[in-house]
Amino acid sequence: MTHRLSQLKNWLIEKQYAFTFLSEPKNVFYFTNFMCDPHERLLGLVVFPHQDPFLVCPNMEKSQAEQAGWQYDIIGYEDHENPWTPVIRRIQERIEGESLKAAIEMNTLPYRHGLNLKACAENLQFYPAEPGVDQLRNIKDEQELKSLRKAAELADFAISVGAGAIKKGKTEQALIAEIEYELKKRGCEGMSFATTVLAGDKSAAPHGNPGDRQIREGDFVLFDLGVIVDGYCSDITRTFVYKHASDEQRKIYDTVLQAEEAAIAAAQNGAIIGDVDRTARQIIDQAGYGKYFTHRIGHGLGLGIHEAPSMSSDNTNHLKTGMVFTIEPGIYVPDIGGVRIEDDVYIGENGPECLTKYPKELQIIE
Amino acid sequence: MTHRLSQLKNWLIEKQYAFTFLSEPKNVFYFTNFMCDPHERLLGLVVFPHQDPFLVCPNMEKSQAEQAGWQYDIIGYEDHENPWTPVIRRIQERIEGESLKAAIEMNTLPYRHGLNLKACAENLQFYPAEPGVDQLRNIKDEQELKSLRKAAELADFAISVGAGAIKKGKTEQALIAEIEYELKKRGCEGMSFATTVLAGDKSAAPHGNPGDRQIREGDFVLFDLGVIVDGYCSDITRTFVYKHASDEQRKIYDTVLQAEEAAIAAAQNGAIIGDVDRTARQIIDQAGYGKYFTHRIGHGLGLGIHEAPSMSSDNTNHLKTGMVFTIEPGIYVPDIGGVRIEDDVYIGENGPECLTKYPKELQIIE
Repeated sequence: MTHRLSQLKNWLIEKQYAFTFLSEPKNVFYFTNFMCDPHERLLGLVVFPHQDPFLVCPNMEKSQAEQAGWQYDIIGYEDHENPWTPVIRRIQERIEGESLKAAIEMNTLPYRHGLNLKACAENLQFYPAEPGVDQLRNIKDEQELKSLRKAAELADFAISVGAGAIKKGKTEQALIAEIEYELKKRGCEGMSFATTVLAGDKSAAPHGNPGDRQIREGDFVLFDLGVIVDGYCSDITRTFVYKHASDEQRKIYDTVLQAEEAAIAAAQNGAIIGDVDRTARQIIDQAGYGKYFTHRIGHGLGLGIHEAPSMSSDNTNHLKTGMVFTIEPGIYVPDIGGVRIEDDVYIGENGPECLTKYPKELQIIE
Repeated sequence: MTHRLSQLKNWLIEKQYAFTFLSEPKNVFYFTNFMCDPHERLLGLVVFPHQDPFLVCPNMEKSQAEQAGWQYDIIGYEDHENPWTPVIRRIQERIEGESLKAAIEMNTLPYRHGLNLKACAENLQFYPAEPGVDQLRNIKDEQELKSLRKAAELADFAISVGAGAIKKGKTEQALIAEIEYELKKRGCEGMSFATTVLAGDKSAAPHGNPGDRQIREGDFVLFDLGVIVDGYCSDITRTFVYKHASDEQRKIYDTVLQAEEAAIAAAQNGAIIGDVDRTARQIIDQAGYGKYFTHRIGHGLGLGIHEAPSMSSDNTNHLKTGMVFTIEPGIYVPDIGGVRIEDDVYIGENGPECLTKYPKELQIIE
């Protein structure tokens, strides 16, 4: 943690920022080892280039911060108190100068927090904290990779539970119940997001909601799920067919699989991120399904289920060793159904490595 | 939905706001019946006093918005497109005048969205949208109450599953697995938040994390959980004792129960919200546990697990018929453990009514 804080301080020095205020729970955890989601209550980590950082959190969470190893100041507060008064005062004590610049989480910090922070100094200018934070969070260290590997392993296991539970007449919801039960029995700390099982024509909605649709012969059955280990998320998608697959279903599946494997192969250290998306998109276009691939090829993965880098065609940044992200092309044809195949990919010294390892060949469930 | 949109428009007219931009998924759902959580992608509902509203969402979610009954414009976009350009243009077409005022979700709208919206007009001033939205969401209609009742009923059921599963040596995580399995088998759409089971001294942390702590004789076992039905949340806490209770445990339990019942009785239509908190706090203070009741008495409940009104001692607003909120006093004594008893309370025509109905007398599990 100390090392990460030093790196953040160096970034503040380089950018000449007077301080950064971080409020996103995962960012706070990354730099403090203190995991706290106080909902609408204020959580903040304030870091300065040359002075000690401090935390602000509800009084009832203070002891957890200390237990997590936090050794600097904590401003605690009760539900009926306004924490901003002491926070602003403390920041003012630690900054000096005119026309100061500060870094905030532009993409997530509530607008009101920004307004409150404006009181720290006249003409305070805000700049995004994300570049400084993400360049650190983007590159996973050994400990993080270990957690991500475990999370991926549990995701593989979850898919095997799901595949084994497919049966005629079973609902999407029932399959979810069985998968999550097996995971929680093994002490899994949580799912990365609401587990998705979609059957038949419902699989054609990339973000559809599972319900009481029952499995029927000839259905695509799509599983999209993830598991959290030590705060780190996995994210996997596999699509099966129940009993028999039509020629069109096979063609869709094979196209997605080919696109996925090509995109993974393209995800080399140094590659332009947009090119990874284009590699998959080209294959799907050529097979005539271009208009049915309606989302980006993937997203960064770590403490966040969707974090930087965005694996989108307009991302001109380069992949780097240590990055972890999903590769997840899909084809969604109304009435027929959808196929998505998704893996978690780590850029190692020797190229891309799939952390999720569940087999990808078309599997027809009998 | 049309009725709710009309009420929101009336509020905009009354406040002389040129428009409101709503981005919080639950707010968008409330006014559109379209449930969409696009994570870091932009979701927005823009409502004007006199013109038609419009939605902005990813292209892949558009059909779900239409299926949900949305009949006005939708600005869709692909992952590589910047949706703000068409959004700003559309807003500019529908507003006129100088020194315009707009309502945004001050407490949740990402700072960057606010900056982007500033481009709609010179000198655009922001005001909080929450008062306008919350005054509607605060008062539950019959349909909403029906969903909340069902959610509360499932929460009661979940507690009974948990109580029935308490056994020596069983871990907190195992109890969670059994509860959630039974719920999901019944097709429950999700939990309102991560189910909490805390045993023994761990129950003394109001927001502790369940783990592999095993149940031992003389433990408090605290369950805090909620279920989502039609998007609406329940939230219940019950605390049991395993095998035998000490005198101190009994005193703590009885104090919390007395405080909870007194607070519910105080939660009458027209009561000052802060007084409800004070009613419970006074009882706990008098029993000598004042410093161990470290949070507010409760929070509003609905589409949000924590929504307005905040049931805090500094809230000077009055309770109104149709409101739903939690009452959840707790006493957390380090080393001994914690007790919290929480119900979901609805202010009906005839006074407060508990939607959660699981018994509250001290139950010693054999």
